[in-house]
Amino acid sequence: MAKVADKYLKVDPWAVVEEGFDPARNRVSESIFSLGNEYMGVRGYPDEGYSGDSLVGSYFNGLYEEMKLGAHYKGIIRRLRFMANAVNWLYTRIEADGETLDLAKSTFSGYTRRVDFRTGVYERQFIWHLASGKSIRITFERLVSMTQSNLGGQRVTFESDDFEGDIHIRSGLDFSPIHEDQGKNLWDVTERGQQDEWTAIVAKTISTGNRLISAFTLDTSSGATTAIVEDDKKVMQAFKLTLKPGQLSYFSKLAVNYAEKDTRVDAKSLWDKGIGLAQAMPIKTFNDFLVDQAAYWTQIWETSDIAIEGDPDNQQGIRFCIFQLYQTYRGDNPGFNIGAKGLTGEAYRGLAFWDTETYCLPFYLFNNPKAARSLLEFRYRSLPNALERAKEVDCKGAFYPIATIDGTESCDLWQHSNLQLQVGTAVGYGIWHYVKVTGDKTFLHAQGMEMLLQLCRFYESRGQWGQKTGQFGYYGVMGPDEFQLMVNNNCYLNLMAKNLFEYTLQAIQEMRQDVPESFDRLTERLGVTEAEWKGWQRLADDMKIPLDEETGVYEQHDGFFDMPHIDIHSIPVTDFPLYHNWSYDRIYRYDMIKQPDVLMFMFLYNQQFSLESKRANYEYYESRCIHESSLSPSIHSIFAAELGKHEEAYKFFEFATRLDLDNYNRNTREGLHTTSIAASWMNIVYGFGGMRSDGPDGLVLNPSIPSQWSGYSFKFLYRGTVLSVKTTQSDVEVKAVSGDPVQVRLYGRDCTIDAAGVRLELEAARVG
Amino acid sequence: MAKVADKYLKVDPWAVVEEGFDPARNRVSESIFSLGNEYMGVRGYPDEGYSGDSLVGSYFNGLYEEMKLGAHYKGIIRRLRFMANAVNWLYTRIEADGETLDLAKSTFSGYTRRVDFRTGVYERQFIWHLASGKSIRITFERLVSMTQSNLGGQRVTFESDDFEGDIHIRSGLDFSPIHEDQGKNLWDVTERGQQDEWTAIVAKTISTGNRLISAFTLDTSSGATTAIVEDDKKVMQAFKLTLKPGQLSYFSKLAVNYAEKDTRVDAKSLWDKGIGLAQAMPIKTFNDFLVDQAAYWTQIWETSDIAIEGDPDNQQGIRFCIFQLYQTYRGDNPGFNIGAKGLTGEAYRGLAFWDTETYCLPFYLFNNPKAARSLLEFRYRSLPNALERAKEVDCKGAFYPIATIDGTESCDLWQHSNLQLQVGTAVGYGIWHYVKVTGDKTFLHAQGMEMLLQLCRFYESRGQWGQKTGQFGYYGVMGPDEFQLMVNNNCYLNLMAKNLFEYTLQAIQEMRQDVPESFDRLTERLGVTEAEWKGWQRLADDMKIPLDEETGVYEQHDGFFDMPHIDIHSIPVTDFPLYHNWSYDRIYRYDMIKQPDVLMFMFLYNQQFSLESKRANYEYYESRCIHESSLSPSIHSIFAAELGKHEEAYKFFEFATRLDLDNYNRNTREGLHTTSIAASWMNIVYGFGGMRSDGPDGLVLNPSIPSQWSGYSFKFLYRGTVLSVKTTQSDVEVKAVSGDPVQVRLYGRDCTIDAAGVRLELEAARVG
Repeated sequence: MAKVADKYLKVDPWAVVEEGFDPARNRVSESIFSLGNEYMGVRGYPDEGYSGDSLVGSYFNGLYEEMKLGAHYKGIIRRLRFMANAVNWLYTRIEADGETLDLAKSTFSGYTRRVDFRTGVYERQFIWHLASGKSIRITFERLVSMTQSNLGGQRVTFESDDFEGDIHIRSGLDFSPIHEDQGKNLWDVTERGQQDEWTAIVAKTISTGNRLISAFTLDTSSGATTAIVEDDKKVMQAFKLTLKPGQLSYFSKLAVNYAEKDTRVDAKSLWDKGIGLAQAMPIKTFNDFLVDQAAYWTQIWETSDIAIEGDPDNQQGIRFCIFQLYQTYRGDNPGFNIGAKGLTGEAYRGLAFWDTETYCLPFYLFNNPKAARSLLEFRYRSLPNALERAKEVDCKGAFYPIATIDGTESCDLWQHSNLQLQVGTAVGYGIWHYVKVTGDKTFLHAQGMEMLLQLCRFYESRGQWGQKTGQFGYYGVMGPDEFQLMVNNNCYLNLMAKNLFEYTLQAIQEMRQDVPESFDRLTERLGVTEAEWKGWQRLADDMKIPLDEETGVYEQHDGFFDMPHIDIHSIPVTDFPLYHNWSYDRIYRYDMIKQPDVLMFMFLYNQQFSLESKRANYEYYESRCIHESSLSPSIHSIFAAELGKHEEAYKFFEFATRLDLDNYNRNTREGLHTTSIAASWMNIVYGFGGMRSDGPDGLVLNPSIPSQWSGYSFKFLYRGTVLSVKTTQSDVEVKAVSGDPVQVRLYGRDCTIDAAGVRLELEAARVG
Repeated sequence: MAKVADKYLKVDPWAVVEEGFDPARNRVSESIFSLGNEYMGVRGYPDEGYSGDSLVGSYFNGLYEEMKLGAHYKGIIRRLRFMANAVNWLYTRIEADGETLDLAKSTFSGYTRRVDFRTGVYERQFIWHLASGKSIRITFERLVSMTQSNLGGQRVTFESDDFEGDIHIRSGLDFSPIHEDQGKNLWDVTERGQQDEWTAIVAKTISTGNRLISAFTLDTSSGATTAIVEDDKKVMQAFKLTLKPGQLSYFSKLAVNYAEKDTRVDAKSLWDKGIGLAQAMPIKTFNDFLVDQAAYWTQIWETSDIAIEGDPDNQQGIRFCIFQLYQTYRGDNPGFNIGAKGLTGEAYRGLAFWDTETYCLPFYLFNNPKAARSLLEFRYRSLPNALERAKEVDCKGAFYPIATIDGTESCDLWQHSNLQLQVGTAVGYGIWHYVKVTGDKTFLHAQGMEMLLQLCRFYESRGQWGQKTGQFGYYGVMGPDEFQLMVNNNCYLNLMAKNLFEYTLQAIQEMRQDVPESFDRLTERLGVTEAEWKGWQRLADDMKIPLDEETGVYEQHDGFFDMPHIDIHSIPVTDFPLYHNWSYDRIYRYDMIKQPDVLMFMFLYNQQFSLESKRANYEYYESRCIHESSLSPSIHSIFAAELGKHEEAYKFFEFATRLDLDNYNRNTREGLHTTSIAASWMNIVYGFGGMRSDGPDGLVLNPSIPSQWSGYSFKFLYRGTVLSVKTTQSDVEVKAVSGDPVQVRLYGRDCTIDAAGVRLELEAARVG
């Protein structure tokens, strides 16, 4: 399954840079040059309109439309919600000398596109050659504010040595883009108008009635007079800029967007809310905006940077990942989750999966705990949906959806939405991990415990007792390895549920001690009796965990060891991805797996298992895994590093940070692999850095270093302290960059880390 | 799962009779009063139009339309073909005194509807009360010819004591009915016109271009002048009949329909073909038609009747079943199959399943061997489709569809169409059973062997080797018991495939001896090498047949014995049918089965198993079966009879013959349970009659008799001889009604049966 890079972009430690324009790669670049701020995201598409291949993607977190499904049977979902594409607030049309700028038709040169990680600025520049022989240099800048969620900004600058005349511009807001998958536009425009210096438009999604008000104001270098133009699903201002040789002309636009999902809010209130937000915006000019944004990013890099010496590709790659993770989620807007593609494309319909708690949460736990908590709050807010969904499938408690935007199940493949039960256990794991790392008991008592109780109810009601074994487990399920479609006693699920029951029981004991009245109020409200929760102990005790005692290998599910064998290296490379090239049913009948399943719980509960156990299972399952999920290689790399297989660890890491930058999977055009990006952070910190956060002894670090690197360092936040871990080929230095001293277990030694830090020799076995 | 009869129709030994009109039951009666002749079928709907609840269903065997599906993955079908509803050739509109006859609006009395099994005539009669106070008795008769496939006939007779005046009639052909499931009409009319005394219309299905020419001619009591009327998708003749008190007036209509699926046939040829058929029709009048039809049925009952003494309900029931089986299929039109509802409704989309070879074939084998062969010819003709389908799922050989009208897979639930492999083994079984019973080696050599070879290729390529057991079997399949969705080593399938391989190898040996050149030509054409077919022996030898040696119970599939137990009697009766009331995924995780699976192969290869083995497996699986298939109870009844559980045998038989007459499943409105009707024939002949046709010693009879009956007899055809088996509470008499003496094994004794017959005492253990 050798992946091949499509090298195209320029390598730079602090930016993504495109030099020259390749129409065939434009969509890929649009994904890579996406900007976002958790509240909204916008792909790097041309502001000025482009008749070539482009996806004008502007997205707002949690804003959704829905489609009806022709469901056959009870318990199979009947409608599916997906992320709506929304207003193009960068809408711009430019004319000069009677020519309309369009890179698919116009003549141009000197094209560059760039996003700088230290400033957050997107900048695109080229020289437009007019038919007259004259030329205009145009620079497009844009920003999506990291401090003001509703705010986006744009500046377009014109400069020429030989052109003198008017440039005709229309700039505004456009709700007309087509949603590709649906093949239609999703919006009805309900209002358009002006108030003071703001021009605004309100639209709502046709089926769900999600609304968005978008308002903009313009500033031009010449104080030009503008005229409102309404057209189709747009509102614009038309104006002209007079350009003289050697003199800069520009216009800048601030756009304020406000999304409203509550259908009870009346039209006037919504209008007032949107305009009110716009008028109160503390950032008034594009220049202020640049300053504010750069300040934000400077601060981020001080606590979250990863530096790699001797490997410029991965240096750029990992900073791109960190940059995107902050753009995707920062916990300032409660009720949001992370879609598989973040806010950078429409693939996977903008839905969030179990990736959130298993792959993304660690990054936020160690960089932005507020964001980590906010992710768990999404699950708390959608608890009513999960309760409802459990009823639909004849179960009790909370059944969290395998794919969702608003908390409702939105995966239209019943085999996934009805058989994959792993999200709930991931939520339980996330609560456990969050509380363990942050010590935030307030969250546990106010929200976490309620989820845990409803989760246990679900995993009690969905489980069954084996007739022959007399053990408890889950029948008719699909595990994380989606190549085994409907199996019994998936080891991952059974083990996760066992841990869920055990953690809940332990948390109950603690909560009853700490805040007994809260616990009683909660259980009374939920109708959870002592007999009920005490009964969970037996389920945990009797949970079937299939293990071959002789080899130490866990059996992925009942009968897996008898599954017909296939040598995965014998599969022709042209057969990949198998989902496209093999009959759907064929994929499911081998001892071949798509992504870690047994290894996944060994990753999540790493310290429950001995090194020998991890080695046995790694060797068995790694040789059967084809990694048809971008999430897979990083987990394997982390194990390889732990097992001292350093070359293998680097091999699996090889395309982690640059999966999108080098378009390894050839589908970056659909959007970034956002949750894989989170895994690449883990790959360095958990893999090479040897961090473990799941054990009983606090934070563990066992750094190693790939032979390809001369050194690397990473920073992270732990219990209020920013720690830095620097590793070279000879030694490791851990110190507190800011904050109080904290305890860390380094190479098995308990160390107090303060500003002076601790320096140890790199452990021999760990040298790559 | 107690089923409750909805008693409504009058009990009569030779007819179905409805007295009085119940609009709420009209659709049920429309199904029951269906006529058909294999080529076409027509529901018992009102000729004159009815604005109440009615399904104007007129069907032509194998005539199909298609719909596109949004398939996600390779190997999942992308379009689905279904039986089209077609021309209403009974179209009639009647006006008198300015009133239009419509039973939903008109006043009427003395309503009866009746189909006589001895004449095949459908007759409906009532008195229409006009607003004027006068009344007209109207009798509708109709026929679908059993000797002229294309011909249907209708006669409408008017009589009055007090009405004098004109009755205005429009009679014709109507292509406008809506297909209910699709919610639209499926036809484009391409031609209308008159030629000589025939008025005709040609239409084609919109997507598939299947064409139908329909022509009619009228005869009236008064030689009335008619005028052609064209309207929407109809062509009609308008005329009036003058009615005088005490004098009969009538009109009769002969309609000739010809279906053309070959799109290469040009319009003129099709027109000429249809009109030519009409003009050459040997039946020229409705009275001729009555005579011809009655003669046909008289002959049928001479060879195929089942008489039951002391049980008028089942007497009527079984004759209704035999009548419908002949109406559904008679082997005069090659290339047809039997849809789950025959030609009586649109449920199951008019598709044929594995029921054909496993449930229907025996009736035809022992009543109409030509029809039996024709059923197998359907599979031969659709071999190219099966070869194509195998390629789609990355296999070799022939993969026969689980549901089809034209040979292509048309089940839109991928889990069924991709995982249920039982049709191919049923085809192989059908070939074996047909050749065994009829001795027709010509068919085996000309068509059967080619299918067998391609079937073996499929079951070789789809099978795999267990990694632990080293045995061969099928992974990721669904067996006949559809409550176990995706399992490994389904015992039924493994055993059926083993038998297929073994029979094919035996047939190869025989064919190489009998007609070596034909065999060589065939294998050369197919590219089947000796090494290839010899390799099948190992697959048969190493096939995994999971059996618990201790209990003698076959394990339905790997892990079934550990499936969580449910006491099926603990399920509330209101939960049935489970498909409607349980979450889809919930059905699949118990040791509960929908219909016989292990028992099914013990039925098909009955004599491979000892009585002890059958008893052990019956007791285990019967107690876990909820019979959520109408095919299930009869198989259980047959086993119960064999095991001497006579009360149980009768209990399972109880609703077999009257499933539709008493609307036990409350869905007869959608069409008759045609393949269950075939099972009810087996229930008597194989169950109570103890016939076995699968053993090495020729035909076996072991009659028993339910205590509820004083006697019963059945006739059947065996190797050219019509045999009659008469059983009373004291003895059994078997004799040859016509034909040469034949050998039969009766109560374990080899007997030569001739016209004098053999009479034996009823065996004690077999008395109910």
